[in-house]
Amino acid sequence: MFSEVSKRVKKVGHPPGTAIYTGDKTGTPEITFTVYNAEGAVEKTGNKLETCMLQRKEGDITWINIEGLHDVSLIEKIAKEFKIHPLTVEDILNVDQRPKVEEFETYLFITLKVLSWQSKKSLLCVNQLSLVIGKEFVLSFEEMDTTRFDNIRKHLQNSMHQRLREQGSDYLAYRLIDTIIDEYFIVLEALGDQIEQVESIIINAPNRRNARAIYRLKQQILLLRKAIWPMREALGHLLYMDETLISKSTRLYLRDVYDHTMQAMDTLETFRDMSASLLDMYLSGLSIRMNEIMKTLTIITTIFIPITALSSIYGMNIPDVPLMQSHWAFIIIFSAMVMIVILMMLYFRKKKWI
Amino acid sequence: MFSEVSKRVKKVGHPPGTAIYTGDKTGTPEITFTVYNAEGAVEKTGNKLETCMLQRKEGDITWINIEGLHDVSLIEKIAKEFKIHPLTVEDILNVDQRPKVEEFETYLFITLKVLSWQSKKSLLCVNQLSLVIGKEFVLSFEEMDTTRFDNIRKHLQNSMHQRLREQGSDYLAYRLIDTIIDEYFIVLEALGDQIEQVESIIINAPNRRNARAIYRLKQQILLLRKAIWPMREALGHLLYMDETLISKSTRLYLRDVYDHTMQAMDTLETFRDMSASLLDMYLSGLSIRMNEIMKTLTIITTIFIPITALSSIYGMNIPDVPLMQSHWAFIIIFSAMVMIVILMMLYFRKKKWI
Amino acid sequence: MFSEVSKRVKKVGHPPGTAIYTGDKTGTPEITFTVYNAEGAVEKTGNKLETCMLQRKEGDITWINIEGLHDVSLIEKIAKEFKIHPLTVEDILNVDQRPKVEEFETYLFITLKVLSWQSKKSLLCVNQLSLVIGKEFVLSFEEMDTTRFDNIRKHLQNSMHQRLREQGSDYLAYRLIDTIIDEYFIVLEALGDQIEQVESIIINAPNRRNARAIYRLKQQILLLRKAIWPMREALGHLLYMDETLISKSTRLYLRDVYDHTMQAMDTLETFRDMSASLLDMYLSGLSIRMNEIMKTLTIITTIFIPITALSSIYGMNIPDVPLMQSHWAFIIIFSAMVMIVILMMLYFRKKKWI
Amino acid sequence: MFSEVSKRVKKVGHPPGTAIYTGDKTGTPEITFTVYNAEGAVEKTGNKLETCMLQRKEGDITWINIEGLHDVSLIEKIAKEFKIHPLTVEDILNVDQRPKVEEFETYLFITLKVLSWQSKKSLLCVNQLSLVIGKEFVLSFEEMDTTRFDNIRKHLQNSMHQRLREQGSDYLAYRLIDTIIDEYFIVLEALGDQIEQVESIIINAPNRRNARAIYRLKQQILLLRKAIWPMREALGHLLYMDETLISKSTRLYLRDVYDHTMQAMDTLETFRDMSASLLDMYLSGLSIRMNEIMKTLTIITTIFIPITALSSIYGMNIPDVPLMQSHWAFIIIFSAMVMIVILMMLYFRKKKWI
Amino acid sequence: MFSEVSKRVKKVGHPPGTAIYTGDKTGTPEITFTVYNAEGAVEKTGNKLETCMLQRKEGDITWINIEGLHDVSLIEKIAKEFKIHPLTVEDILNVDQRPKVEEFETYLFITLKVLSWQSKKSLLCVNQLSLVIGKEFVLSFEEMDTTRFDNIRKHLQNSMHQRLREQGSDYLAYRLIDTIIDEYFIVLEALGDQIEQVESIIINAPNRRNARAIYRLKQQILLLRKAIWPMREALGHLLYMDETLISKSTRLYLRDVYDHTMQAMDTLETFRDMSASLLDMYLSGLSIRMNEIMKTLTIITTIFIPITALSSIYGMNIPDVPLMQSHWAFIIIFSAMVMIVILMMLYFRKKKWI
Repeated sequence: MFSEVSKRVKKVGHPPGTAIYTGDKTGTPEITFTVYNAEGAVEKTGNKLETCMLQRKEGDITWINIEGLHDVSLIEKIAKEFKIHPLTVEDILNVDQRPKVEEFETYLFITLKVLSWQSKKSLLCVNQLSLVIGKEFVLSFEEMDTTRFDNIRKHLQNSMHQRLREQGSDYLAYRLIDTIIDEYFIVLEALGDQIEQVESIIINAPNRRNARAIYRLKQQILLLRKAIWPMREALGHLLYMDETLISKSTRLYLRDVYDHTMQAMDTLETFRDMSASLLDMYLSGLSIRMNEIMKTLTIITTIFIPITALSSIYGMNIPDVPLMQSHWAFIIIFSAMVMIVILMMLYFRKKKWI
Repeated sequence: MFSEVSKRVKKVGHPPGTAIYTGDKTGTPEITFTVYNAEGAVEKTGNKLETCMLQRKEGDITWINIEGLHDVSLIEKIAKEFKIHPLTVEDILNVDQRPKVEEFETYLFITLKVLSWQSKKSLLCVNQLSLVIGKEFVLSFEEMDTTRFDNIRKHLQNSMHQRLREQGSDYLAYRLIDTIIDEYFIVLEALGDQIEQVESIIINAPNRRNARAIYRLKQQILLLRKAIWPMREALGHLLYMDETLISKSTRLYLRDVYDHTMQAMDTLETFRDMSASLLDMYLSGLSIRMNEIMKTLTIITTIFIPITALSSIYGMNIPDVPLMQSHWAFIIIFSAMVMIVILMMLYFRKKKWI
Repeated sequence: MFSEVSKRVKKVGHPPGTAIYTGDKTGTPEITFTVYNAEGAVEKTGNKLETCMLQRKEGDITWINIEGLHDVSLIEKIAKEFKIHPLTVEDILNVDQRPKVEEFETYLFITLKVLSWQSKKSLLCVNQLSLVIGKEFVLSFEEMDTTRFDNIRKHLQNSMHQRLREQGSDYLAYRLIDTIIDEYFIVLEALGDQIEQVESIIINAPNRRNARAIYRLKQQILLLRKAIWPMREALGHLLYMDETLISKSTRLYLRDVYDHTMQAMDTLETFRDMSASLLDMYLSGLSIRMNEIMKTLTIITTIFIPITALSSIYGMNIPDVPLMQSHWAFIIIFSAMVMIVILMMLYFRKKKWI
Repeated sequence: MFSEVSKRVKKVGHPPGTAIYTGDKTGTPEITFTVYNAEGAVEKTGNKLETCMLQRKEGDITWINIEGLHDVSLIEKIAKEFKIHPLTVEDILNVDQRPKVEEFETYLFITLKVLSWQSKKSLLCVNQLSLVIGKEFVLSFEEMDTTRFDNIRKHLQNSMHQRLREQGSDYLAYRLIDTIIDEYFIVLEALGDQIEQVESIIINAPNRRNARAIYRLKQQILLLRKAIWPMREALGHLLYMDETLISKSTRLYLRDVYDHTMQAMDTLETFRDMSASLLDMYLSGLSIRMNEIMKTLTIITTIFIPITALSSIYGMNIPDVPLMQSHWAFIIIFSAMVMIVILMMLYFRKKKWI
Repeated sequence: MFSEVSKRVKKVGHPPGTAIYTGDKTGTPEITFTVYNAEGAVEKTGNKLETCMLQRKEGDITWINIEGLHDVSLIEKIAKEFKIHPLTVEDILNVDQRPKVEEFETYLFITLKVLSWQSKKSLLCVNQLSLVIGKEFVLSFEEMDTTRFDNIRKHLQNSMHQRLREQGSDYLAYRLIDTIIDEYFIVLEALGDQIEQVESIIINAPNRRNARAIYRLKQQILLLRKAIWPMREALGHLLYMDETLISKSTRLYLRDVYDHTMQAMDTLETFRDMSASLLDMYLSGLSIRMNEIMKTLTIITTIFIPITALSSIYGMNIPDVPLMQSHWAFIIIFSAMVMIVILMMLYFRKKKWI
C-alpha cells in the first residue's frame, strides 16, 4: 500500500527531469520492435535498439514495446530518437505515477495502471504502463515481462485483422489500452468472488478471522479505487482533445473504453458499499451472539441461584427453622424449587428468550 | 451481483467489435416485424428476416423487435442491413453494458436496463434492452421473451391511437423507453413493500434473521442504483442532443421520462437512507435487549447471592457463631434476608430498572 | 412513504398523455374563479365552468383555482379552453410528480409540493399544487380543499393591495408560490419542536421508545428532503428563464422565494445532522447504562462470592479443618470476611467504580 | 437552534414586502451618522434622523449605522430617503435571513451573520448585520448595540488613516465585513478550546457527561456551519460582480476576506471531523471499560465458584463421601482448591487478562 | 491544531494591510541573496539588504530568500523595493494563511504550507512559505531556518545545471515549489509507516492504547488534508493563468507538480479511509474479546452452579431427603454432577463455544 510513497521518496532532492528508476531492478529489459503498414508487419525481438531502428520506413508505423524499465540509458536513447521531453522520461521511469494523459507538441503521453490478480496468494498486483503515441510511432513501457500484448502482435501479423494494420498509431494505442482495461474485469471478478466467499462465511459460520478478511477486502478495494478513479479522468480527457493525434474514428472506440472504465468504477463502488454492509452484518452478528451467550448465562443463573439460596437456608446450623423437623420438609422445599424453575421458565418464555 | 463482471471476462483477449454474446443461451429468438405509417400498421411474427424485409416501403417506419440475443449471425445480418457499426453490434450482444446513449452518423444507440420483479422468489431481475433508432427504423433487442411491448403493438394497429403512427421513429422509441421506466416503479413498489415489512418486524418482534434481511435489502438497492444512476445520465444526454434524430416535440416527452427517472432515483436514495436507519434501529434494539437481559441477571443475582452468603455463614460447622443457639436466630436471620431483598428492590427502583 | 410509488403503478401500460387521476377520490371539486385588473376584482365560487368563463374580458387576468382533482373531465375541459398540452394535464392529475418547472410555448407549468403539519397526529402531510401560468391567466390545481389562498383573494378585492392587481399573472403566481413556501417553515418548526422534545427526553430519561422516535424523525426528514430538494432546483431554473412570461420585477421576488427554499434546505440538513447526533447520543447512553448495570453486578458478586466460598469451606463435614474447634474461629473468619469486603471496596474505589 | 424557524413563522400570511421585525424587541435604536470625505469626517450620534440628513453634501460619503431594528417606522423612513426596495426592507427586518448578496439597480444589499462568543455561558450567539451599499452611502443595520465598529469610526476621524477616507463607500463596506469575519476567528478559537478540553477529559478521565459535551459541541458546529457556508457563497458572488459598485482595488481586498471565510470553513470542517473522532474515541473507551469490568467479574467468579462447589460437596449430609473421614481430607481438598486458583490464574495470564 | 486560529485572533481590530507577524519570534532572520543569469550566479549571505541590492544588474534574476519573518521592518523594506502591495506583506507575515495563488499587476503571490516530519517526537510540523514572483525576481519567505533550498543554490552555481540559470524566474519558482511538494511524500511515508505499525499491533496484540493511537493518526491526517487540499486548488489556478508571468514551458513543469499534489491527495484520502477501517477493526476486536470473556464466564458458571445447587440440597439439615441415608448416595449424586458437566460441555460444543 505504501510502497508507492516510499519509492517517490528516492527522488527527493533531484532536479526535475532527472531519469531515476523508482521500481525494483530485474534482469535485461526485453524490447519488441514491430513495424507495420496496411500490407503487413515485421516483428523483431531482442535488446539491440540500433539494428531495429534501421528498419523503419516512411509511412510505416513503429511500435516499440519495452518490458522492464531499469535500463535507464536505453530509455534515454529511445527518448532522444523520438524527441521525448525529459519530464516524460522521468514519468516513464517513475513507476508510481497517477494515471494521466498529457499532450505534448509531437506526441501524447499516457500513464496507466495495469492490474493483475495473483490467484495463488490472492493478492492484487499493480504495475504501470506508459504509452507514448506519435503520428507514426507507439512506444509502450511495461514494468514487468508479460504476455499481455501477444494477441495484438499476432493480429498485426494475421491477414484477417487487416483493419488493425490499416488504421493509424492511435488505433494501436487504443487496442493496447483496451487490453489493459479488459484485464480490470478479471481482477474485479476475483474480488467479487472473495466478497461472496466472506459473505457466505459470515452468514453461515462467523468467526473472529472475519474482521481481518473484511479489512483486507477493504484495503484491496481502496487500492483499486486509487488506480481506477484517475483513469476515468484521464480517458475522459482523451475524448475531448483536439483531433491532431486521435482520429475521429478512434475516438469512437475510446468512448467504448471510457464506458468500460465507468462500469469498472460502478462495480467497485458497489463492492465498497457491499464491504461496508458486510462489516455491519458481521458486527450485528457479534451483538446477536453476545445476546445469546448472556441469555444462556442468565437462564442458568436465575434458575439455580434461588435453589442454592433456598437449600443454604435449610443448611444453617440454627434451631427452630420452620419445617426443619417436619417429615414433609423435603417435599415442600423441593416443590418450592420446582415452582421457582417453572416460574422462571414461564418468565423467559414470555420474554421470548427460550 | 457479480455475474455481470464474470460475463465480461469471457470477452478478454478478443479484438474490439467482435460479436460475442455474453448472456445465457436460450431457444430460437423471436422476431416481431412491424411496418407502419399514418394510415395503418402491418405486423409479422416469425424468425425469417428476409421475407419481412421485403415489405418495407419508402416513408414507412420499420420496427423490428428481437427477443433473445444468442443467434449472433441473425443480429449481424440485421446490422448489415441497417448499416450498424461493429461496436454497436458488440454492445448489443454484450448484455452487461452500462446504460448509455451513443450518437452515430445515421442512428442513435441506446442501451437500458430492464428491471423486473419476481414476486415468488422476491428477487430482482435485471435484463438489457438495446435500441437502435434511425430516421425510418427502430430496432429493439431484448434479452428475454416478454410481453412488455404488446400494448404498444396493439396501439399501432388501433385506429384510436393515430398519434402514435403519425409521429416519427423517435416517438416510438420514446414509447418503448417510457414502458421500461414505468416498470421501474413496480420494482420500487415491491422493494418499498419489503422495507415496510422488515420495518414492522423490527419494531414488533426483532429476531436474528433481521440482519440478513436488511443486508439483502441493501444489496438489492445497490443493484438498482447501479442500473438507474447511469440511466439518468444517458437520458439527460439525450435531451441536449441536436435535433437531427430526436424531434422537438418528442424531446418534450423525453423530458417527461427523464423526470420519472429522477423520481425513481430520489425514491431509491430515500430507500437507501431508510435501510441505513433500519439497521441503526435494529442494532439499537439489540443493545436495548442486552441491557434488559443484563438487568434481569443482575437483579436475580444481587438478591439471592447475599442470602446465600448469609445462610452459608450459619451453615459453618464452627462453635460460638453469634445467635447460633438462640431461639430467635431464624427470625432474625430471615428478617435480615427480607431486609436485603427490600433494600435491593428499592435500589433498583431508584435506578428505574424495575 | 411508499404511497407515491404505488400510485404511479396505476398508470403502467397506459399511453403517455392519458389523463388518469392517481390520488384518492373525494367529493365535488370546488372551483374559484377570479377575474381582475388594476381597478378591481370579481370572484365567483361554484363548480360550473361555463358561466364563469363568460366573464373574462380582454386585458383582464383570470385566476382559476380548482380544489380536488378527481373530476378528470372538468380538468380536460379547462385544458382545452386554455390550450394546455396533454402531458401537462397528465402531470396535473398525477399527484406524485417531482417538483419541477416546465416551459411550454404559451405557458409555464409548475408543480410544487404543499406541506402541512397535522399537529394532532404529529404527522406530516404532503400534497401537490400545480400551476399553469399564461400571459393572462393563472390556473392552480390543488389536491385538497384548503383555505390557503383566502388571504390572497382578500388582497385582490382589497383596495389597499393595489400593487397585487396592477402586476401581471406572474406576480400572482409568485404570491401563490410564496404562500406555499412560507408554510414550509411551519412544518420545519413543528419538526424542530419534535427534535427538541426527543432530545430533552434522551438527556433526562432515556427509554427504549427513543430509538423508534428517532427513527420516525429521520423518516419525516427524508420525506421533507424529497419534497424540498427538487423545489430548489425548479425555482433556480425559474430564475434563469428568458423574460417572456416572468417579468424582471417578478424575478426579483422569485429570487426571494428561492432564498427561502435554500434556507429551508439548510435547516433541514441541520435537522438531519442533529437526528444523527441524537442517535449517537442515545446509543452511547445505552452503552453507559450497560456499564452501570455490569458494575453493580460485579460489585455485588465480587463481594459476596468470596464470603460464600469461605463459609462453604467451614461448612464441610470433614475432620481437622483448621480453627474449626477453636473458640476464636468465628471472630477470625468473620474478620477475614470483613477484610475481603474492605479490600474489594478499596479496589473498586481505585478503579473509580464507586 | 430552532428560534430561526419559529421567527419566520410570524410572517406567514403577510404579503411580501411587508415590514415586520422578526427579532426580540429592545429599547430605543441608536443611530450613528457619519459623513466623510478625503479631508475629514463628521460623526453624530442620536436617534433623530432628520437633523442628521441635512449635513450630507455632494461628493461626501454617508454612513448610517443603526443598532436595534425594532423601530420599523424609522427604518422605513431611511429606506424611503435612499430609495430602497420594499423587499430589502423586509429582509433587513427579518433577522433570520440566510447570508446573501443581492444586486439592485442603485445599491448592493448584503446580509451577514455576526457571531459572538459569550464566554461566561460558553454560548454561541448569532446575530444579523445588513449592509446597503450605494455609490455615496453605506447603511449598516445591526440587531444589537455593539462596539464592534468603534475602531473604524476612530480611523475615519484619525488623520493617520487617510486611505480609508479617500476610498469609496465600497471600501468602507469591505472594512465593516472584514471586522465581522475577523470576529469569526475568536468564536472558532473558543470552540477549538472547548474541543481540546473535552478531548483531554476523554483521554484522562472519561465520564458519562462526555456524551452530552460532544453532542453540544456538534450542535454548535452545526450552527456555525449554517452561518458560514452561505457566507462563502455570498462573498464569492461579490467577487464576480460587474464593477459599477465594487471598484477593482476594493475587489482585491474582498478577495482577502473571501480567503478568510474559506479558512474559517476549513477550520470548521476540521472541527466537525474531530468531534466525530472524539465520539468514536469516547465510545471505544466505553467498550474498553466494559471489557475490564467483565474481566474482573469473570476472574473473581471463575476462581471462587469452583471452590464453593467443592466445599458444598463436602458439606452434604450423606454417608460415604470419599475422604470424608480421613485426616488428610482438609489438606487434600485445600490443595485442590489452591490448584484450581493457580490453574485459573495461569489461564487468565495466558489470555493476557491479568 | 488550533494554534492557527488563535494566531489570527492577534490581528482582530487592526486595519487591513497592517504588517503584524503572527508567528513565534526567533533570533535574527537570515537573508540569502542570489543574482544569476545564463552565465553564472553570485550568492551573498548575511542580513544587510542594502549592500546586496547594489549587485543587481539589468537582465539578471534576483532571488532573495528570507528565513525568519519576525523582523517586520526588514520585510517592509524589501516590499517597498519591489513594489509589493500591503495586503501581500500582511499575508507574508500572517503565517496561518490558507495556501493560495494571487495575481497582482507586476507579480504573482503564492503561499504554500511546508510539511516536515519530526521523527523523534513522531510529530507533524506545518510551516509557511510565501513566494513573490516578478519578471526579474523571486522572493521566498520562510518561517524557520532550513537547508531545504541548498540543493537549488548549488545547482545555480554549478555549470552542469545551466538549464536552471537559462530559464526565467518562473522556472526557479517552480523548482522551489517542487522541492516543497517532494517533501510531502516524506511526511506521507512517515504517516504510512505509522498506520502500518498501528495496524500490526491491532492485528497481533490489541490493547487499550490503540484507540488513542488511531485518534492521533486521524488528527494528523486532518491536519495534512487542511494543508494539501487548498494547495491543489491554488496550483490548479496557476495552470490556467494567462502567460505573462508563467511561461508555456514552465507551465509544463507546473502540471507535473500539480499531478504530484493530486497523488499526495489520493494517498491521503486512502490513509483516511484506512484509518476509518482500522477503527472498525479495533472496535470489532473489542466486541470479539468481550464475547470471549463472556463465554468463559458463562461456561464456568453454568458448569459449577448446578453442582453447587445439587450439593446444597444434600447439605440441608432436614430429615427424609431421598438417598440421604443410602450408601449409593455419593455415587449417584456424583454421577449426576458428572452428567451435568458432560451435558453442558456437549451443549457448548454444539453452540461452537468450545
